[in-house]
Amino acid sequence: MKLKTDYQKIINAIYKQIKEEEDLGEIAKYIPELAKVDPNKFGVFLTTIENEEYGIGDCLEKFSIQSIAKVLSLTMAYQTLSGNIWERVGVEPSGNPFNSLVQLETDEGIPRNPFINGGALVICDMLLTQLKNPKQEFLQFIRDISGNPSIHYSEAIAKSEMSAGFRNIAVCNFIKSFGNIINDPNKVLDFYFHMCSIKMNCQELSQTFMFLANSKFRNVKNEPILNLSHAKRINAIMQTCGFYDESGEFSFKVGLPGKSGVGGGIVAVHPGEYTIAVWSPKLNKKGNSYRGMQFLELFTTKTESSIF
Amino acid sequence: MKLKTDYQKIINAIYKQIKEEEDLGEIAKYIPELAKVDPNKFGVFLTTIENEEYGIGDCLEKFSIQSIAKVLSLTMAYQTLSGNIWERVGVEPSGNPFNSLVQLETDEGIPRNPFINGGALVICDMLLTQLKNPKQEFLQFIRDISGNPSIHYSEAIAKSEMSAGFRNIAVCNFIKSFGNIINDPNKVLDFYFHMCSIKMNCQELSQTFMFLANSKFRNVKNEPILNLSHAKRINAIMQTCGFYDESGEFSFKVGLPGKSGVGGGIVAVHPGEYTIAVWSPKLNKKGNSYRGMQFLELFTTKTESSIF
Amino acid sequence: MKLKTDYQKIINAIYKQIKEEEDLGEIAKYIPELAKVDPNKFGVFLTTIENEEYGIGDCLEKFSIQSIAKVLSLTMAYQTLSGNIWERVGVEPSGNPFNSLVQLETDEGIPRNPFINGGALVICDMLLTQLKNPKQEFLQFIRDISGNPSIHYSEAIAKSEMSAGFRNIAVCNFIKSFGNIINDPNKVLDFYFHMCSIKMNCQELSQTFMFLANSKFRNVKNEPILNLSHAKRINAIMQTCGFYDESGEFSFKVGLPGKSGVGGGIVAVHPGEYTIAVWSPKLNKKGNSYRGMQFLELFTTKTESSIF
Amino acid sequence: MKLKTDYQKIINAIYKQIKEEEDLGEIAKYIPELAKVDPNKFGVFLTTIENEEYGIGDCLEKFSIQSIAKVLSLTMAYQTLSGNIWERVGVEPSGNPFNSLVQLETDEGIPRNPFINGGALVICDMLLTQLKNPKQEFLQFIRDISGNPSIHYSEAIAKSEMSAGFRNIAVCNFIKSFGNIINDPNKVLDFYFHMCSIKMNCQELSQTFMFLANSKFRNVKNEPILNLSHAKRINAIMQTCGFYDESGEFSFKVGLPGKSGVGGGIVAVHPGEYTIAVWSPKLNKKGNSYRGMQFLELFTTKTESSIF
Repeated sequence: MKLKTDYQKIINAIYKQIKEEEDLGEIAKYIPELAKVDPNKFGVFLTTIENEEYGIGDCLEKFSIQSIAKVLSLTMAYQTLSGNIWERVGVEPSGNPFNSLVQLETDEGIPRNPFINGGALVICDMLLTQLKNPKQEFLQFIRDISGNPSIHYSEAIAKSEMSAGFRNIAVCNFIKSFGNIINDPNKVLDFYFHMCSIKMNCQELSQTFMFLANSKFRNVKNEPILNLSHAKRINAIMQTCGFYDESGEFSFKVGLPGKSGVGGGIVAVHPGEYTIAVWSPKLNKKGNSYRGMQFLELFTTKTESSIF
Repeated sequence: MKLKTDYQKIINAIYKQIKEEEDLGEIAKYIPELAKVDPNKFGVFLTTIENEEYGIGDCLEKFSIQSIAKVLSLTMAYQTLSGNIWERVGVEPSGNPFNSLVQLETDEGIPRNPFINGGALVICDMLLTQLKNPKQEFLQFIRDISGNPSIHYSEAIAKSEMSAGFRNIAVCNFIKSFGNIINDPNKVLDFYFHMCSIKMNCQELSQTFMFLANSKFRNVKNEPILNLSHAKRINAIMQTCGFYDESGEFSFKVGLPGKSGVGGGIVAVHPGEYTIAVWSPKLNKKGNSYRGMQFLELFTTKTESSIF
Repeated sequence: MKLKTDYQKIINAIYKQIKEEEDLGEIAKYIPELAKVDPNKFGVFLTTIENEEYGIGDCLEKFSIQSIAKVLSLTMAYQTLSGNIWERVGVEPSGNPFNSLVQLETDEGIPRNPFINGGALVICDMLLTQLKNPKQEFLQFIRDISGNPSIHYSEAIAKSEMSAGFRNIAVCNFIKSFGNIINDPNKVLDFYFHMCSIKMNCQELSQTFMFLANSKFRNVKNEPILNLSHAKRINAIMQTCGFYDESGEFSFKVGLPGKSGVGGGIVAVHPGEYTIAVWSPKLNKKGNSYRGMQFLELFTTKTESSIF
Repeated sequence: MKLKTDYQKIINAIYKQIKEEEDLGEIAKYIPELAKVDPNKFGVFLTTIENEEYGIGDCLEKFSIQSIAKVLSLTMAYQTLSGNIWERVGVEPSGNPFNSLVQLETDEGIPRNPFINGGALVICDMLLTQLKNPKQEFLQFIRDISGNPSIHYSEAIAKSEMSAGFRNIAVCNFIKSFGNIINDPNKVLDFYFHMCSIKMNCQELSQTFMFLANSKFRNVKNEPILNLSHAKRINAIMQTCGFYDESGEFSFKVGLPGKSGVGGGIVAVHPGEYTIAVWSPKLNKKGNSYRGMQFLELFTTKTESSIF
């Protein structure tokens, strides 16, 4: 492990190197609102468990965190429902794209894990049953963790996704046909699309995920988020399932638990050390940020800081 | 992390607790020779990177390591072929049973990872092309790592597997039909079945896997096995793919990179800390040792020693 | 071929024989309104191309024709769109259940044939684009063929299906996500559920399908329905795809082109000879009328009248 | 139906028309011996049930009948084992390519029908158990039906297929792993490859298949081949499964029961009318003769002689 005082230098060097190379990714076009984002945005932010901070580039500009929010909805569900979650969703990598319906048919409506779309929809369904004002309470939950009351849903993005989200509508109704969605599919989808529309910047993201790196972390109300065992388990799921059918590749090259979103964000966690958020909107073929993957691979290689 | 001096106490306590519970696993019957093993065998052995050793039960009795050998053949191939391996085999979890042919058809003969049977057969094929006397050289490779010249193939088990190995014959010829096996399938299968037939005890296994926990490890000839980056990558693949379609579950419950075999053995690695081998022949539905899984879950929980 | 004057005797004998045996089928429960039907209903009606008629049992009682309507919507689309249909839907048997989504994913939204739900939804989408008042015009189309202005949609059944039709909502949105549904999925589904809700009795069904047995058939307006070549092709698709993943079995045992519905109806066509409709609500495991299959197998065996 | 005296004129006209168009098929290259055949060969032969004969082109030149032989092995098995066949092989179209392993995994080793490779291997296995000298007796069976003692296996082709038949070796061992192959897979494969290697010309093929068109047909020993009901059932399976995942297309365009082989041959049967054999080695993407398909579509259109 390199000295922490080196983090800024290493981040700067890798950032510069990647900026000079061509970005071979492509921006996600299937959500009209996301397609408007400047494809050249690129930001990085690292927070250590001692609360040292290192950032570069567009690290203070907000973007749609998309599927990264699935970790937070899982955390909220885990907090209140504990192990009961796992009767309705698995913890296995799927070996399939994020929106595949094939496996759901074989598995009779039990999604493989909470990070593929089907699994996240089931988690949303659990929260809908559990909460009085799901959208408000979920937002408050994130604001309390991040200590940041300025975090918001983007109604424009939520609406844009709803209008183009035929695959997700299909997935949700498909699971409903197996009985593993309890509430009205339209309400589940509305919650899901709002959840994915949350906008945060790299700094906010790396701060919000600190509870997965630091077992002593408490939110602004001085409450713990998850016990150590539960936090470890969420890290474990991120490690095996955080990047759809590129999860093995991320584990292999980067060696940290992490989660990506089609907005181009990636958060990764080094338990006991740091959290890091990267944002660059152009995606590789598997739907993960091209430069984000590149940055994190170089970063854990240079700092020798993979968990393995 | 608990003090290391506690390891023996914790091992003893968990061992006793599990012994008192019913073993709900079932012995693998499809390999006639394996079906002869006493199903009540149960052994554990832990080796720290400072070379402290802690064992209990049948930890000095040899058994067929089966698929655990796939880590060692991958290591040997990685040593000589480096990154060229990954053109012919992936690093993604499969989401399918160890001997499934479905994915191979979709993926046109490129196995998802080196630990499902198809992937291990492709690795065997690479070694066959590379080595003059594959079976002898592979055995010597393991003897050098373990410092133990008494390690042998079991001809009886290899023969038994060959006689009942129709599924593996199918997998090998299927991959050959896509052109991703170069050598004669019968030769590849002969090497593969021999590799799986190797017999070791828990002590030997935990010692042999030390190179994945200790980056300074050297074999009896004072040679390094893999560089740090390569060792980390093998750990990463074990983490995501070491237990077939129960890999996520193992990662979730145990939180260590590991590899199982249908002989009832499991090896797990805590990088920078220890390696641990467990043996109990009765398997759960996914083909992993029932008591082995149970032991390791309790062990990493009590020692708070998962990598997450 | 037996003399036609024997038809009534043969029908009576088989009807009696089957009535005496146990009905091993089960009524479809997933559409609440259909579950209310008396499960012991049993009717048969045969019309020859010379317009001789032979009926027995509940052959004059109306029931929901369900998927049988898919033949009529295909016919209407074929009439106006001709070969252009086949760019958006195939003519291959699927080898899968009627509501499977697996194949749609592999085939990128092109349903295998117009008789699985996905294919019928695409046909509905074509008609929606083509017609000004789709529901009225489709109903008129059937009334003109059958010469029977008393044929109606059942709003109760359409509503019941819509409320429980999560799988069909999934299928329709899934195809939309591939771009092979042009109109709003909700409108397509509304048309589809109405189409399936049409109620007819066995006599009306056998008369309505006469255009597939008699190339000289004309509707009440003295218009031909399809040219000979197109009629043959619809028969061919019924032969290979009319009974979902039991199509081969029906072809094997009965040897006639035909189409079933989950309401318990089956229509079969012997080109140049006759049409026959059978109704009995209890279904076998593949979703086809248990007694209907039984009746038709015995009928074509006794009359030696399969097309083979 | 056109007058039979027109058959020769129609055959000549279509043959000439097709000859003038480009042959867009490609010769099968995966069996080395088949790749040697002159790709421009093209022959047609029709035999009516009154034994009138009409031929053109290379209709008297022998070629490897390949999968067409599967109809004959099924017939031989049906003769001796009757309905017991259907416990080990289905009658459903597969919706998949001829050599797919995917469905076999889901269906636990029960092939969908006797005309995909897996099903034909199971039929071979049945005959191996039943017959004393399988290869000789099967050949004699065909010689007796065709009245032609000059029909032979091609040892060169059988050997060539064995050397390149990795996919079939995979299929056979895969089914064996489910217990649905009784004999040694190598013996089953040897029989299978020999069966496929039989060489016949178009005239011999159309004569040999006459028992499926003419219920009064008897072999040279004056024995019936199959009763009417069984013959109808074999026709029904050819109709739904004779062309792999192009069976629906063939049924749709040609409208006759038929069977193709990768040697470029196709036989079709019009029950009560005629049998017709076409040979042209270049195949379409589904593995069926490009010109053969084209010829038969034009032929049944011009003669209006589909069974529908």
